[in-house]
Amino acid sequence: MRPFFEPRGVMVVGASASPEKLGAVMAASLEKSGVPLARVNPRANADGFATSAAEAARQIADSGGHPDLAVICVPAGATPAALADCAAAGARAALVCSGGFSEIGPEGAAIEDRVRDELARGGMRLLGPNTSGFFAPGRGLIASFVPGAHRVAVGSVGIVAASGGVNHMLAFRLSGQGVGISLGVGIGTGVDVDHADVLAHLASDEQTRVIALHLETCDDGPALLAAVRAATARKPVVALVVGRNNVSEFARSHTGALATSWRTTRSVLSQAGAVVVDDEEQLISAVIGLSGGRIAASRSPGAALITGQAGPGLLIADELGSRRVDLPVLSEQTRQRIGELLPPLTYQANPVDTGRPGPGFSEVIAAVADDAEVDAVGVYGLTEPVLDMVSSVRRAKEMQRGSAPVIVAMDGPEEELAADRSAAVGAGVPFVTGPLGLAQAVAAVVEDARLRALDEAAVAVAGPGLEASGGWDEHAAKRLVAGLGIATPERRVVVSREEAHAAFTELRAPLAVKILSETLLHKTEVGGVHLGIADREALDAAFDALLTIGAERVLVEEMAPSGIDLILGARRDPVFGPIVLLGIGGTAAEAIGDVVIRSAPLSTEIAAAMPDELQAAALLRGWRGGPAVDTAELAACIAGIGGLLVANEWIDELEVNPLRVTAEGAIALDAVLVTRKEDDGVDTDN
Amino acid sequence: MRPFFEPRGVMVVGASASPEKLGAVMAASLEKSGVPLARVNPRANADGFATSAAEAARQIADSGGHPDLAVICVPAGATPAALADCAAAGARAALVCSGGFSEIGPEGAAIEDRVRDELARGGMRLLGPNTSGFFAPGRGLIASFVPGAHRVAVGSVGIVAASGGVNHMLAFRLSGQGVGISLGVGIGTGVDVDHADVLAHLASDEQTRVIALHLETCDDGPALLAAVRAATARKPVVALVVGRNNVSEFARSHTGALATSWRTTRSVLSQAGAVVVDDEEQLISAVIGLSGGRIAASRSPGAALITGQAGPGLLIADELGSRRVDLPVLSEQTRQRIGELLPPLTYQANPVDTGRPGPGFSEVIAAVADDAEVDAVGVYGLTEPVLDMVSSVRRAKEMQRGSAPVIVAMDGPEEELAADRSAAVGAGVPFVTGPLGLAQAVAAVVEDARLRALDEAAVAVAGPGLEASGGWDEHAAKRLVAGLGIATPERRVVVSREEAHAAFTELRAPLAVKILSETLLHKTEVGGVHLGIADREALDAAFDALLTIGAERVLVEEMAPSGIDLILGARRDPVFGPIVLLGIGGTAAEAIGDVVIRSAPLSTEIAAAMPDELQAAALLRGWRGGPAVDTAELAACIAGIGGLLVANEWIDELEVNPLRVTAEGAIALDAVLVTRKEDDGVDTDN
Repeated sequence: MRPFFEPRGVMVVGASASPEKLGAVMAASLEKSGVPLARVNPRANADGFATSAAEAARQIADSGGHPDLAVICVPAGATPAALADCAAAGARAALVCSGGFSEIGPEGAAIEDRVRDELARGGMRLLGPNTSGFFAPGRGLIASFVPGAHRVAVGSVGIVAASGGVNHMLAFRLSGQGVGISLGVGIGTGVDVDHADVLAHLASDEQTRVIALHLETCDDGPALLAAVRAATARKPVVALVVGRNNVSEFARSHTGALATSWRTTRSVLSQAGAVVVDDEEQLISAVIGLSGGRIAASRSPGAALITGQAGPGLLIADELGSRRVDLPVLSEQTRQRIGELLPPLTYQANPVDTGRPGPGFSEVIAAVADDAEVDAVGVYGLTEPVLDMVSSVRRAKEMQRGSAPVIVAMDGPEEELAADRSAAVGAGVPFVTGPLGLAQAVAAVVEDARLRALDEAAVAVAGPGLEASGGWDEHAAKRLVAGLGIATPERRVVVSREEAHAAFTELRAPLAVKILSETLLHKTEVGGVHLGIADREALDAAFDALLTIGAERVLVEEMAPSGIDLILGARRDPVFGPIVLLGIGGTAAEAIGDVVIRSAPLSTEIAAAMPDELQAAALLRGWRGGPAVDTAELAACIAGIGGLLVANEWIDELEVNPLRVTAEGAIALDAVLVTRKEDDGVDTDN
Repeated sequence: MRPFFEPRGVMVVGASASPEKLGAVMAASLEKSGVPLARVNPRANADGFATSAAEAARQIADSGGHPDLAVICVPAGATPAALADCAAAGARAALVCSGGFSEIGPEGAAIEDRVRDELARGGMRLLGPNTSGFFAPGRGLIASFVPGAHRVAVGSVGIVAASGGVNHMLAFRLSGQGVGISLGVGIGTGVDVDHADVLAHLASDEQTRVIALHLETCDDGPALLAAVRAATARKPVVALVVGRNNVSEFARSHTGALATSWRTTRSVLSQAGAVVVDDEEQLISAVIGLSGGRIAASRSPGAALITGQAGPGLLIADELGSRRVDLPVLSEQTRQRIGELLPPLTYQANPVDTGRPGPGFSEVIAAVADDAEVDAVGVYGLTEPVLDMVSSVRRAKEMQRGSAPVIVAMDGPEEELAADRSAAVGAGVPFVTGPLGLAQAVAAVVEDARLRALDEAAVAVAGPGLEASGGWDEHAAKRLVAGLGIATPERRVVVSREEAHAAFTELRAPLAVKILSETLLHKTEVGGVHLGIADREALDAAFDALLTIGAERVLVEEMAPSGIDLILGARRDPVFGPIVLLGIGGTAAEAIGDVVIRSAPLSTEIAAAMPDELQAAALLRGWRGGPAVDTAELAACIAGIGGLLVANEWIDELEVNPLRVTAEGAIALDAVLVTRKEDDGVDTDN
């Protein structure tokens, strides 16, 4: 990516003498960087313009540079030829801003194919098309036609956004909060350079301490996840995924691609270590919170809240609760210490209500931050002319023995707030706006630590590699499932009344009697399932009924005790490859879409965290005296079927539905295995 | 409330000569209003201090005023006596800021009781205790000790907040967005003046165009709802309710009361016409959006989105989708008109992607706003030095034939954004920050219109008044339910085998056979329910089994076809009185808490909107070929049992569980009626 972001020279193809034209704006913007620059316009007769890429390369060479980067500002149709010329002149990277490619239909797609050919031929990388570009404020390198892009502040946040508009929006917003940008990139259509490429660059870029990721679509899921995993190993990544709702028609007009499955994308990004957020405001707060540094990886980090006003403190505590952030009760020792410092009427257990903060404020913050249960501290207050809160936090940081980060949010008259913000930025104290912002910032720091705790424990469960074969009826699928250590009911396959009666003798009634078929997916709907068979008469009746619907083989099996029905499945997502799904059985849960997703392979530790994310999680913890799920057992089941899909390319889908959680453990009551068909995609949830 | 907010004179009791003390800060702040002011301090020997309330009243009278308002700045223990003195001196309203009352425990509660006695004796109203006060910036009347409160901008938003801190926080934040405040009030402990009092004042206050409501607890639900209903009939109310999570211990330390049931409170506030929001950022965006005016009441208003950049536009469209805001496809005529104005590559169906906005921007906005399907328009763009977006919107407003409000959000370098914001404020154009803010603002305008459309149709269903009686077993409860027009299964009450066999002859097997009891609430758990009785042998076995568990009367009834099980209930909420609940049956939905609540009485129109708010709503629309609910029939059931509870004080609770939705209609398979016990509260959900 260096030819893009650290070029030794830049040529702007399609630079115009009219200052308002795209090419002229780009050239004027790039010129400020001090990197040798040449303007190319075959029809230009103005001074200084090169009439060809080759001439531009000579101009750049004369200035001691090399034309690493070509910024192409010509219409879509002229782009392939321009790329060829630039490659021939020595360019290694190209930025194409214009639209008119695959997002407009077949005609544009044809041009895009020619662009790809030229890239392959010239050994060049391309950013775009359909992007407003990128900026590296620290180098003064602003390859963007957005007015004001040169005002983005210098700093340590790297942005990789699907959309150039979102890239700029985030950069402006963060700059407004006093948080600068190391590099901001809008991917656009993403014909060549994609999120993964830029993530890899940002991961190793020393100026970048936090990465903001905005995603609309993804072509290569595994590459994206690998890049996120590599990046989160080194620095925090905060991810915003578009597409909760059906916005695909508009999305396609924008990037030429359908929005990626929102839920799956969020799940697997989180699993790869990214802090996944719901909207751009939360992204901004999370990035600012994490700019204060990570905390140690932990399954359940503790946060503390110190507030100058109880009402806003209650809003923050409520919001932290929604984000599963624990506010542990402070130790006796800490409470004694802050009890000496605070008026007696205030709440001091955590949240710590300081009343209106007084002179001992720094000591209170330091004492709370050093509590053994506290990993991160949020401080909220209205601006106070007599007490400089930011200085108090700075002094507290000096007193602190430990390293718990302290994040501050304030509200007050605009000018006072601006002064406090700039003091905080100067002191390196993360500073967000308002109760919600503080809760989001603290929650991001906690979530980043939680994800790393899971990640460190991640040893993926590998499945057995099996010979590909057909003939997967329920019995065979259950045998496979049993091989993974998942319990299945005692059962017999029978082809005659006599065998059925023998099975009845051997098994414990009541029994289930079902049609066995390799092709029939919906047994119940054709009357292929008879339950609660308690005597031989009922058995005969069921057997005969199955014969009349064409059964050749019949499964006779013991029924399980009552319990809670789960759905456990593994599939191949068209973008992210093997994934596992855990859901609650029954139509209500299905209608709600109460499902948790992970990519496979996965460790049992990661699988063990899945049930807690179900909306109906309480159901698995012994609901109204019912059985509680054995998390370790369930995790082994989940990781096992994930591993199986990974190890066996020929399996397309395996679903255990229901997996019944009983007082005696989990048992697979039905199992369906679908083998891979040639050239066949798989539907995913959205 | 006028003695508080439009006093003819103010005395500050406990005013100190030390300028940093609370009383001195208050007096200094109030003095700026120009309202005659007197400082009371019995021990003061400084010039100008009155040594008693009576002397203060004389000072105020000498300045041509009357001491309407007493601001009490003495410790809790001295407050009752101070109130008595002020009442005697003619004060009609008192503001008490200090803490140390019921929120600290029994000792404080005793003082609070004495305060109540003094109020009753003196015929005085009291705001507080434990609040930072109130401010009416338009009058320069700042009865607040918060530094910077005098910098709150003058405007048309009224705030009534549970917490003084939140009152100030919202006022500062709105001021920072260029939106001023008419009156901001922090209720504090709310010993006397509560949200309903202030809402009533704001509803009739001509300066106030939008009301922001922040609620932590509520003692008198019906009074609050009546106040919200009266206010929303005249102007929009946006409500933020604290307590999604268990924050009650901290809340109690703050206001002395438990947080109110969050879910019920939100539901009934919404039913009363308030736009209910999730956090303070959404509240701010909603208030700004509604400051541009309401749109006509409508069941399904249409919104349009015009964006300068597709990426942020996609974020906004996605967020609008989550908030159930419809973006109807624009008419052929509108699309033709904007097609003439926009470059051909952009998406123009709605959202309208203008590319980078050009000179025809005003015409585009006007054309979209005048589309027949469009009731409100959101416009988003990055700041553009060459195109003044706010002026474009203003020009568009002049061209517009209709009255659809246009709300603008922009992002860009801080200074440009500030300039655009102040231009928007000057032009009366609602201006919010960022994609999320715009979606929230537009959604608030749409939601306000939707709620009014329901409200106008509201003719509550009254229930029959019945003679109070005991003896409510399942059969009696079902008779009552049947009287409301809800279908119940054909059934017989039997006391002998012979009667059971007679019932078997008359009814259509399979049958359910159940114990009948006026006291037993959980029949199934004691083996009191036998289902699927298909023959006389099974009938005998079931009957005998019920005898062994003590059954004296037995219910024999026909079983219903399969379908979707709902839970329909009516209860008395300790705060809001009669409420109805609709939920999905089954443990999974119960664990998720998929329930919709309304206060009773309610119209069938309001009831008809309930199923759509269930998370599992899809289940009721013919899930996988299953039966679809007859909404009108279900609405009649809901409104009916609500009306019953309202008309019959002696009924505490009535629950139909399940109410089964079948292809032939809804049928009550079980019903439980609980009569009122003396002095007995009812649990509510949270």
